[in-house]
Amino acid sequence: MLDDQFDHQIQQRIDQKTKPLGALGQLEKLAFQLAKIQSNRAGHFVERLSIDHPSIIIFAADHGIAEQGVSIAPSVVTQQMVSNFLQGGAAINCFCRVNSIDFSVVDCGLLTPVTVAQLTDKQTLLLSRLGQGTNDFSTGPAMTLEQVEQGLLSGRKIVDNKLSQGCELLMFGEMGIGNTSSASALLSANFAIDVDTSVGRGTGIDDNQWRLKRQLVKQGVERFLAVQSAASCVETVKQSLAELGGYEIVHLVGAFLQASERKIPVLVDGFIISVAAALACKIAPESKQFMIFAHTSEESAHRALLEQLEVRALLDLGLRLGEGTGAALAMPLVKCAAEFYNTMASFDSAGVTV
Amino acid sequence: MLDDQFDHQIQQRIDQKTKPLGALGQLEKLAFQLAKIQSNRAGHFVERLSIDHPSIIIFAADHGIAEQGVSIAPSVVTQQMVSNFLQGGAAINCFCRVNSIDFSVVDCGLLTPVTVAQLTDKQTLLLSRLGQGTNDFSTGPAMTLEQVEQGLLSGRKIVDNKLSQGCELLMFGEMGIGNTSSASALLSANFAIDVDTSVGRGTGIDDNQWRLKRQLVKQGVERFLAVQSAASCVETVKQSLAELGGYEIVHLVGAFLQASERKIPVLVDGFIISVAAALACKIAPESKQFMIFAHTSEESAHRALLEQLEVRALLDLGLRLGEGTGAALAMPLVKCAAEFYNTMASFDSAGVTV
Repeated sequence: MLDDQFDHQIQQRIDQKTKPLGALGQLEKLAFQLAKIQSNRAGHFVERLSIDHPSIIIFAADHGIAEQGVSIAPSVVTQQMVSNFLQGGAAINCFCRVNSIDFSVVDCGLLTPVTVAQLTDKQTLLLSRLGQGTNDFSTGPAMTLEQVEQGLLSGRKIVDNKLSQGCELLMFGEMGIGNTSSASALLSANFAIDVDTSVGRGTGIDDNQWRLKRQLVKQGVERFLAVQSAASCVETVKQSLAELGGYEIVHLVGAFLQASERKIPVLVDGFIISVAAALACKIAPESKQFMIFAHTSEESAHRALLEQLEVRALLDLGLRLGEGTGAALAMPLVKCAAEFYNTMASFDSAGVTV
Repeated sequence: MLDDQFDHQIQQRIDQKTKPLGALGQLEKLAFQLAKIQSNRAGHFVERLSIDHPSIIIFAADHGIAEQGVSIAPSVVTQQMVSNFLQGGAAINCFCRVNSIDFSVVDCGLLTPVTVAQLTDKQTLLLSRLGQGTNDFSTGPAMTLEQVEQGLLSGRKIVDNKLSQGCELLMFGEMGIGNTSSASALLSANFAIDVDTSVGRGTGIDDNQWRLKRQLVKQGVERFLAVQSAASCVETVKQSLAELGGYEIVHLVGAFLQASERKIPVLVDGFIISVAAALACKIAPESKQFMIFAHTSEESAHRALLEQLEVRALLDLGLRLGEGTGAALAMPLVKCAAEFYNTMASFDSAGVTV
């Protein structure tokens, strides 16, 4: 866990700024969190926060369960959207351009890899394929425990690589038709949230699809609970990932764990990313201290999960897109929190009467 | 009112973007509003939104009622904070730097004008002084009707001047010790919101000050209701401004009216700015179509006012600072809405299966 030794100095710095105590609300908490993380990383109280080269990494993969028609789109759309990302045409590209966020995509296991012809910008695509989409988790394990270990390790390495390029703040995104089903199953398997609550409408399925989705997720969760044999909390999380996970979600858990070990803050996007974040917290509770929750998704279970994590997100804009869009939209708030901590005048320096 | 003739084309453009219908939530409504405004301004359907040179104008003035101790700070702090603005040391300066927002301050009637020695950046200060602070509205009229007319006109001219510099999106801020008292009084005088609801704790007064503030605001409102003689809604608003207003608030009402006439969107900050916005809507109902509500303030009456206006703000970060900080923080969301409307791929162009 982060050391509390700098807390007093940090709070004092914030309270001396030319504003009434607490008047910047959540932005003050955000500045405090960043300063605590960076003071711990530096080993001394920092007066200047640095969030250079903010980067988003989008983890993409396909899901066997998509074959059953639990999404508004077929699996082929995962690959099409990855191509769209690489061509700069998706919502996340727009928001990264406006907010100066470095962008890359990881193929964690698409059904069909992106072809070379589609690669207008090869640098932004990383290959870390655990397979050609997972197996359908409603009928059997999504992947093996070996694949889980490999995905966790790869997620860690991808973060390390990004940090070696000077990145000081991370965001993660996801793309994968069917991945809200997997996230809902993981949520119900690992937390006290039942399937009727954990399964939402994703990007907008109808009543029949929603009924089917709940039934299939329930089957998967029940299967997991029946075969569950792990001795420790960490092993249980890994086993649940093997039974119910997605390749991108496994990468995400590893990525969160590594960001925490490297003491790098992560701006946490919506439902799927938050489920991965919550699993990382189960494995390493201290990782929560590095998470800044960016937005509350329209996916109903996200609100329940944020409550369980006892966190409040920065934005609530009715988004249900994924891709890391909520994190990218919240990035300027992080920049503003750092800027006021760094450069705003104190009562003394500005000659303002306290 | 804005013509609806472009609505269908605008909605179609948004719906063809590579995302599920409505998945960008409030950002889609924001893009729609901007596109409707700019299509009306251009006289044809626009495929490219332009929000170049976004600018914030801070209107500052002093209030006679501050003498009674209804704020956490004395009137001298208004001038000190204006100096802080001019030196780039305030929260609003930080947020304008991060979000590339042009910044200027208007002295609408400080008790003591900023001295030349304090002017490190003269270009950002405009003088539009209606007096040396208003009279205490709890005992008599804050200003004359002539001052109201002059302030409305000056607010309009300041907007015109800013637009002539190429500004395509406006934000307004305010600074004035005591101005939540004036805003609360104006709210109760013009809308069905009683004084116990309209009077909050401003930037953080204690229970005794809060009791006093409620009592003084009530005196002012009752005095206004007793002398009120205007025949029309417009005249009533003007009379309430004379009886209860502040010099910065009068300027703000004029500024909102002019932005509306010039068909320029305004990102609306917190409580005081929203009261001025609501008064502008009473004078010219169409002006609401140009308002983008940026955030919900911690000042309790702000939520009640937003409900009465039937609008939902973009941010809810527990801010209670003023200065236009909420508007400046929301600016990147407007940029992102414009960017997705302008450059995000359509299903067709990206080859994504609908």
